[in-house]
Amino acid sequence: MEAGFEVNLRRPCSASRVLVASHIESLVFDTSHTKHHPKGPLAYASLELYVDDVSDGSCVASADPRVLRETAATAWVDGGHGLGPVVGRFSMELALSKAKEVGVGWVVAKGSNHYGIAGWYSMLALERKMLGMSFTNTSPLVSPTRSKKAALGTNPISVAVPAGKDSYVLDMATTAAALGKIEMQRRRGQPLPVGWAQGPDGAVTTDADLAYKTQCLMPLGGAEDSAGYKGYGLALMVETFCGLLSGSAYGPDVRRWGSSGETANLGQCFIALDPAAFAPGFEDRAADLIGKLRSMEPADPAKPVLVPGDPERAHMEHVDQQGGVRYVAQQVESSEKLAQRLQITPMKVLA
Amino acid sequence: MEAGFEVNLRRPCSASRVLVASHIESLVFDTSHTKHHPKGPLAYASLELYVDDVSDGSCVASADPRVLRETAATAWVDGGHGLGPVVGRFSMELALSKAKEVGVGWVVAKGSNHYGIAGWYSMLALERKMLGMSFTNTSPLVSPTRSKKAALGTNPISVAVPAGKDSYVLDMATTAAALGKIEMQRRRGQPLPVGWAQGPDGAVTTDADLAYKTQCLMPLGGAEDSAGYKGYGLALMVETFCGLLSGSAYGPDVRRWGSSGETANLGQCFIALDPAAFAPGFEDRAADLIGKLRSMEPADPAKPVLVPGDPERAHMEHVDQQGGVRYVAQQVESSEKLAQRLQITPMKVLA
Repeated sequence: MEAGFEVNLRRPCSASRVLVASHIESLVFDTSHTKHHPKGPLAYASLELYVDDVSDGSCVASADPRVLRETAATAWVDGGHGLGPVVGRFSMELALSKAKEVGVGWVVAKGSNHYGIAGWYSMLALERKMLGMSFTNTSPLVSPTRSKKAALGTNPISVAVPAGKDSYVLDMATTAAALGKIEMQRRRGQPLPVGWAQGPDGAVTTDADLAYKTQCLMPLGGAEDSAGYKGYGLALMVETFCGLLSGSAYGPDVRRWGSSGETANLGQCFIALDPAAFAPGFEDRAADLIGKLRSMEPADPAKPVLVPGDPERAHMEHVDQQGGVRYVAQQVESSEKLAQRLQITPMKVLA
Repeated sequence: MEAGFEVNLRRPCSASRVLVASHIESLVFDTSHTKHHPKGPLAYASLELYVDDVSDGSCVASADPRVLRETAATAWVDGGHGLGPVVGRFSMELALSKAKEVGVGWVVAKGSNHYGIAGWYSMLALERKMLGMSFTNTSPLVSPTRSKKAALGTNPISVAVPAGKDSYVLDMATTAAALGKIEMQRRRGQPLPVGWAQGPDGAVTTDADLAYKTQCLMPLGGAEDSAGYKGYGLALMVETFCGLLSGSAYGPDVRRWGSSGETANLGQCFIALDPAAFAPGFEDRAADLIGKLRSMEPADPAKPVLVPGDPERAHMEHVDQQGGVRYVAQQVESSEKLAQRLQITPMKVLA
């Protein structure tokens, strides 16, 4: 690992970055407040896991992705067990260049690692005035409807859509809630809403402590009677695009989150679509529709109707107004420990 | 309209068909019991609406779809306000032939009409050993999260995936429940599960009567705290693929369901993907994964874990065992009235 570990906490968040190795440079960014920030896809909170994987060789930091098979519109990529963002950016750029030529680019990669924020890759399409999509399989944490145990990941779907000076960005796990939200309810001592998680007997539980121990989320929609089988179907669709098409690990055989020592061999899928291949005026229509949605009369006047990505945009503005990202003491401590372990300069806390 | 209106109710459902006009031939099929039947995509229950649209000229039964713009991988189709299944089949076949050449075919159509079962088009891919997808926008019936009123349709997502002799077929509205399910609860005098529908004030309601009158469904996930904004995001994604890309009607401006006299001008999207463009052995992996999912230990031993499409397959077997599709008296009556109106031979009831 190369030296260099510097974060200026008082500068706007766009300037914050962590240098760990040449391949990680610019890839790590704190996302506790703002998951759609364009500077880098990796959540700061997961940094130690990435370092662990590089340290024990299950992630090959120097790997370069290569194309194994391609057509004018598709490519099959071998990520060589490289860093997720390296594989992801390579694949998304390839999808974008194919879409520029033939309207659509569909790229799947095997041998990848955790790639951070799904929306970061789909958003690469926005500046080219294209639609971008990204999907990844993940460690099994979600129960197929009726099953006692988890067999699929939180398998996110992300879609970024340009709309003139505006845009919308959907970036959603195919579960009702993330594990982090369950942990938060547990720390607050509050019960879970029905449909977030199940207990060891396979039944829905609202006990946050039990849910956190069981680590078995329910798919979007919750239980069967509230259409949880649709969320399960979407998770399976994502697994199909990622693991099954790419030939990576898939389903219950993906390694557990945080377990190092074996390759993650994740599968990922990246799609770019050029609206110019279809009806003229796409961005005007997109801007018109999201404008109409935002101006729908809300049930509660204090809660205006939003489009996907609006909450993250608001958070980003808030963080910039604050002059930077606020870290909790625990995060600063753990980054100091990590710096010690790597024998690099620790993060400077400026306020 | 040409004469000919014949259904043999005692023959297996694969032989049942309704001939109304040359363009409708083989397109209409009763789907009250089996929505994935491959013989035709249109629900028998909607037949009268299709006839109304053709009668008043808002649907042009003789229209032939044409390609307005294309690349090796994409096409923009004008359906000419033709019958939905004519536009749909034309577009899906085009997507399949493009996928055969360059791995993926992405086709969007404007000027279409209600196309029936989304899964029927995606399933056309199965016999070519490809993945098929189909999406359509629909009349506004779903509330964007926080909105008092509906602005998007039930906008379905369908994905068909070949797996050797097996397959799975996802075909889901992006709502928690269909309007038909609400009507059923209402007739039974039972309350709705939380998250299906909202009342005129925009709040969740469990009053089936009120929900049926309000006609405002909630997106998959229900209210905001159970992640209904994800279902809303998916409905918006489908509208993007359909209305926004194709230049058809979109969002709140799509005509109300059942309102004739103006063109529906629906937008639809059809995708075919050749797994041979990616890692070899796709169908083996797909068969392995769906096998593993089906063999997960269920929470309730009486309810085995299924994959998308399994319930419909079971229904089809059941219908074939019964010797045909059973119609309720109301359906037979309304088809007799329709036959009278069209001055054609009424359906023969054999049992």
